[in-house]
Order: sequence, then structure tokens, then C-alpha cells
Amino acid sequence: MTLKNDRFLKALLRQPVDRTPVWIMRQAGRYLPEYRATREKAGSFMQLCQTPELACEVTLQPLERFELDAAILFSDILTIPDAMGLELYFTTGEGPAFRKPVQTRAAVDALPLPDPEQELRYVMDAVRLIRRELDGRVPLIGFSGSPWTLATYMVEGGSSKNFSRIKGLLFDEPETAHRLLEKLARAVADYLNAQIAAGAQAVMIFDTWGGLLMPEHFRTFSLAYMQRVVEQLQRERDGQPVPVILFSKGADGHLEAMADTGCDALGVDWTIEIGQARTRVGDRVALQGNLDPSALYASPETIRREVQKVLQSFGPGSGHVFNLGHGIHPEINPEHVKVLVDAVHELSAPLHG
Amino acid sequence: MTLKNDRFLKALLRQPVDRTPVWIMRQAGRYLPEYRATREKAGSFMQLCQTPELACEVTLQPLERFELDAAILFSDILTIPDAMGLELYFTTGEGPAFRKPVQTRAAVDALPLPDPEQELRYVMDAVRLIRRELDGRVPLIGFSGSPWTLATYMVEGGSSKNFSRIKGLLFDEPETAHRLLEKLARAVADYLNAQIAAGAQAVMIFDTWGGLLMPEHFRTFSLAYMQRVVEQLQRERDGQPVPVILFSKGADGHLEAMADTGCDALGVDWTIEIGQARTRVGDRVALQGNLDPSALYASPETIRREVQKVLQSFGPGSGHVFNLGHGIHPEINPEHVKVLVDAVHELSAPLHG
Repeated sequence: MTLKNDRFLKALLRQPVDRTPVWIMRQAGRYLPEYRATREKAGSFMQLCQTPELACEVTLQPLERFELDAAILFSDILTIPDAMGLELYFTTGEGPAFRKPVQTRAAVDALPLPDPEQELRYVMDAVRLIRRELDGRVPLIGFSGSPWTLATYMVEGGSSKNFSRIKGLLFDEPETAHRLLEKLARAVADYLNAQIAAGAQAVMIFDTWGGLLMPEHFRTFSLAYMQRVVEQLQRERDGQPVPVILFSKGADGHLEAMADTGCDALGVDWTIEIGQARTRVGDRVALQGNLDPSALYASPETIRREVQKVLQSFGPGSGHVFNLGHGIHPEINPEHVKVLVDAVHELSAPLHG
Repeated sequence: MTLKNDRFLKALLRQPVDRTPVWIMRQAGRYLPEYRATREKAGSFMQLCQTPELACEVTLQPLERFELDAAILFSDILTIPDAMGLELYFTTGEGPAFRKPVQTRAAVDALPLPDPEQELRYVMDAVRLIRRELDGRVPLIGFSGSPWTLATYMVEGGSSKNFSRIKGLLFDEPETAHRLLEKLARAVADYLNAQIAAGAQAVMIFDTWGGLLMPEHFRTFSLAYMQRVVEQLQRERDGQPVPVILFSKGADGHLEAMADTGCDALGVDWTIEIGQARTRVGDRVALQGNLDPSALYASPETIRREVQKVLQSFGPGSGHVFNLGHGIHPEINPEHVKVLVDAVHELSAPLHG
């Protein structure tokens, strides 16, 4: 099936495009009233993730409203540890938690490697269904948390303020941390390969907590395992390349090293100028980002002005996928998202062609 | 009065020292049982801050346990907005809040400029008392929140997840933000000058939320106003220089620009190698940091090894004040702090002289 809109994939491969493509992290989410309605209907967040028809429904919702250039699978980043038996649940106001956190060497060694088409079949079914419903409108992005980010939740037992347990492990029992991360790198690669086999046309690895780490730890415990995942991925399906995007939040200092992993593109948060990031990574990778998500609180005129600044900072040529520098906040007015998306397409035309 | 231990001040001025000096952000705090006892006795956190005898007591507590090279005034970063009439209070678990946040141009214009020896006399009395009680053992550091950091709390009304109000203001009403920041820069300078007059021998500006900002906003709304504060400070008292330290958490990308403000030293968080930071700032400023605060969860042997790594990364010569890269976590075992402090003195000897 031919894609009707392949700007997103082309930009990730740094091929010429007519407009800068745009999508929004968490574009299927709480800021949309129709998402909240489906979430209500599902009963719980986990039910929403585990019911392919509902996951498909919310994945497609933002595409009905906005001229987005990609869809992203609706799911949670903690599906893998849940499938390993940690029993994910969600507490009101405090976020995700596990009934059975992993805190000893024995617990790490006992972790099973999930079969994505068995324990995570609901995700693969969602991917297949979304691809069918998308019918080639735009490409579908699959995703996973990074091994390090999954490990933080698995060891802490949920969200954390000071990350004392996982940090204690890195400092005092690095071998246990490495065993856990090795297993997770394998599980993440299997999971993303299964998504690719099910129809994901690009994949993104979210390293939400990479920015917590001192440089030596980032390289050893976060970056090295993302690289292993990248090396194990099926980078092509049906003769089409499947690009890989890495995004380590708060790790701007490591852009060059991340570009050297062999990925196709890097997500960039808003604390660095994207033009400066482009200079640093050169033509090794495309870049995805990086408007301050708070710009969407501002007026439409301001949003257009800030979109223009990001586009100008990246400059002419391909290799830029417009996005926010982090997920959209739940209080944002959906009309403002429309302003952003339309502004990217309109204002980027002179940069291409 | 002659200081018995002036390593800290000398290192800030990049003069030769016999050992690398060390102190710990939040060294007077919840990880110490004697602090918790005084806090209990005070009744509330605000009472503790506002009673000079008790503030003095907790300021001195860590010096009884550890061979620290500096004391830091015990106070809160939000004393200035409280003195401006915003009515600071503390909620359990959610941190500081203001009964009267500032959200309009009219409210900004109506803010009074506090007289530090009137509305903030309790702070100045604490400084005088601590100096008397220290009796020249080590120097006393005074401090303030940065204008930008104070503004975030004042506009949000307390701690915030997404900083929607203050960010909205920066994007849509930058003039109102500038008026608020101008007033705060003046108030911070007055406050720090009063602390210096009362006896503070060095001052530190904490820009806790500098790392939230995109580069253009950081320069315009955070850095520019710290620079104004630096320019207005009394940098000498009784013929002795009074060094100024700036610390913007999560703003490693801006070290060079911060070094150009005319301050004497920069605080460095743990997400950059301090040796790399030294290369970037050259001999313009001293550096303070930057052990990952989580290293204190680790074993004594690991703590010593990590201290050694930071010392080696900075390398030989003066200009380094050892510290954590952020405040000490409340669960840390005080014995581990002793290990750190002693390790800094012992292991740094070969780097000097």
C-alpha cells in the first residue's frame, strides 16, 4: 500500500520534502475531550491500552482534527514490565506503580522475556488495527520506553522523587543493573521488532529519565543499552526503511554520542536551540522537536511566531520533524494545536523546494 | 576577626588552598535528627526560619558533626515574596504556597519593595547571631532565590507541575514579566546587600528553575536579571572580597554566559563532568559541585571512589569548591556525609601545593 503522506518518513531519512512534517508527543491524550470520553468508556487507563479497538480509536482522534503527518500508537511505556509479571496499576494523582517491583539480583534473574505476540498481543493487535484504519493516510509510529527508563520504574516500583533505589543499584551493584538492562534491551528490541512486523513504519525509544544521570552513568546505563536495541532492530520491512528515533529528555549534552548509535533521528527537548543541535550532529541524523510545550498556553499569534522561530533555527533543507520538546500538557486548548500544525506547514514551505 | 578556615573563600577567588573546601547544599536539613528535633520545637517551618536563635541553631548543627569549610544561613528561598505581602505558607507534601499570588500587571505594579532591615529583619538578625556564634571557624554564606525563580512561585502561587501561568506570561505578556523581574532583581540585590552588611562573607543565588526555559527565555528572563543582581552587589566588606556564586539547576548549556555575568563562581549540577565545565569557563570563575546527590545512598567505599572521580575530573589547582550537584536528599545517612567530607579533604591534598 502506498502512503498518501510520507513527509514524516522522508524527513527522518533526510530526503527532500515539500513541507516540514509535524506530529505532537501525546497527541492522543487528555487535552482532547473525545479522548476523555473514550477513556471514560474504557473504565480504566489499562483497559484503554489493552483494548485494541479503543487504543485504535484514540490513536486516530487527533488525525480527525489536525493535519498531522504521523500517527503514534496509543499505549503505555510500561507494558513490557507488566508483561514480565510486575503487575502495573495506576494510582490517582501519583501515576504508574508496580505491585511486584524488582529489587534483588534473584528477582532480576527470574524475570521472564515476554513473547510480544503472546503477553503483548493486545499491542500488536492495536498496531494491526490502526494500520488498517489509517489506510495509508499517514505512517504509524511504534514506540517503547528505553531499557534505562523501564528499569527506573521497575526498581523503584513506580514514579519516584529521588530515585534512591535504582541509583543505589548503579553505584553499589552495577552488575545487577547491567543484568537487568541487558534483559530489557532484548525485550525492547523484541517488542519493537514485533511492532514493526505488525505494521509500525517508524519506531521511537523514549528515554524519559536519561537526564537524571551523570555523564558516565548515562553512557554506561542508558546510551549503551539504547544502542544495543538499535543494533537489534529490523530496519526494513517490505522493502521500506523503518527509521528509528531516540529521545533522551534532559540529555542535550549527549547529542553527538546519541547520533553515533546508528539511529536515524534524535528527539530534542526545548532547552537547546535546534539549529545549534543541528550544527552539533551534522548530517548524521535528522532532528525532531523542539517547541517549548508551554508555548501552547500562549495566544495564536504567539504560537505562530514561536513556530517560525523553531523552523528558522533549524533552517532550510530536510531532516527536521516538527514536534514539541516534550509531551503536550493536558490543559492545552485543542484549537491551539491546530494553530501550531497549520503554522508548521504554512511557514515551512519556503524552507523546502 | 580573622577566619580560622578560609579555604572556601580562597577557592572561590581561585587562590591557592591546602585542600579542596567542601560544603553541602541543604547541609542543615531533614537528614539530621537534631535538625528534625529543632524543627519540631519550632512548631512550623516558618517559625524555624523566623526565629533567629533557632535558625542559628540549625545552621550550626552540621558543623558539629562534619569538618565542613562553610556554613550557610538557614532560611527559605521565598522570604522576599513573603515580605512583599504574598503570605507564604507550607502545605504538607505539596511544598510552599502563597495566599496572594501575583498574576496581573496591576498586582505586579502594586508590589512593595521590602526593606531588608524591617520586613526581613529576622533574616539579618539570624546572620548576625550566626556570625557571632561561628566566631570565625568558617565563613558564612548568605543566599537568595534568583529573580526568575522567585517569579515562578509568585505567579504560580506555589510549586507547579507545568508552570502554565508564568510561561503564559513570558510568551504573551513579556512586559509584565519584565516589570516583575526588574522589581525582584532590585529586591534580591537589597536583600543580599543587607545580608553582607549583617555579616555574610559570600553569597549564592539559587536559580532553581532556570532549567525550565528555552535558551532565549533563559537569557532574557533568568540570566539578565541575575546579572543585574550581581552588578548591584557590595562585593567587599571590611576590606575583604565577598564572592558571589550563581547556580542555575539544569542549565549546563549556559555556563559560558553565566561566567560572563561577573560572578566569582558557578554551581554545577551532576549532569556534566566538572572537568569539562572547567574547560568551558576557563579561568573566568571558580566552580562548585558536582557529585550526584544519589551517590550518598551508596556504600562508604563507593562514596570515596565517586569523590575521587569528581576531584580528578576538576584536576589540580584551586578554583574548586566541592559540593553535591543539588541539595542533599532527606533520607541520607549522616554517617555517609562524614565519609564524603573527610574523603574530599584527604583525597584532594595531592591536587594542591
